[in-house]
Amino acid sequence: MPRSQRRRPALAHPEPEEFDLLDVLHALSDPTRMTIVQTLRAAPERACGTFPVDVAPSTLTHHFRVLREAGVIRQREDGNRRWTALRSEDLETRFPGLLDAIVTAYESRLSRRR
Amino acid sequence: MPRSQRRRPALAHPEPEEFDLLDVLHALSDPTRMTIVQTLRAAPERACGTFPVDVAPSTLTHHFRVLREAGVIRQREDGNRRWTALRSEDLETRFPGLLDAIVTAYESRLSRRR
Repeated sequence: MPRSQRRRPALAHPEPEEFDLLDVLHALSDPTRMTIVQTLRAAPERACGTFPVDVAPSTLTHHFRVLREAGVIRQREDGNRRWTALRSEDLETRFPGLLDAIVTAYESRLSRRR
Repeated sequence: MPRSQRRRPALAHPEPEEFDLLDVLHALSDPTRMTIVQTLRAAPERACGTFPVDVAPSTLTHHFRVLREAGVIRQREDGNRRWTALRSEDLETRFPGLLDAIVTAYESRLSRRR
């Protein structure tokens, strides 16, 4: 079967009640993954090749999987493109105030370095 | 020189302005380390053997080091005992609201499991 017709397995996404805080903290403890999260806060949905990170595609796929399995992002296929969005509302429902506190802390860190 | 007279190296503690948010998130992304933090929130200072965690001493030493190097805890020697305290004020100064948001999220998770 040609590659283009092979069916890719559906992407797994946990339900909010399945989110594990320790997985979320681990997912956010990496600079590439934090850059992905910051980028998604400014845009509702982005195609996978458009993130301002300088890593190999396989590494980026790994980072997306860690974020997706922790519940931080949602990804969907659309033809040959994969779109990524932040699960802000699900995270807010499950862990109120958490994502804001973390991203605010991260951005205050960056502004001190300027 | 007998072991008891050997001088142990001083414990390194970062200054608040050196805290790295990603190190703090990594330090808190482990269940044993989160239990240490929760235990310290209830007591100003604890001796090292008194934490309700079920891990080998060498593993516990590793967990304390990760927390200490991230700035989450402070440790001091007093004779043969090592005392551990949470650096709540330093963390609050550096990352306002962060530790509370994380521990609250962690405890809401535990209460859902009951």
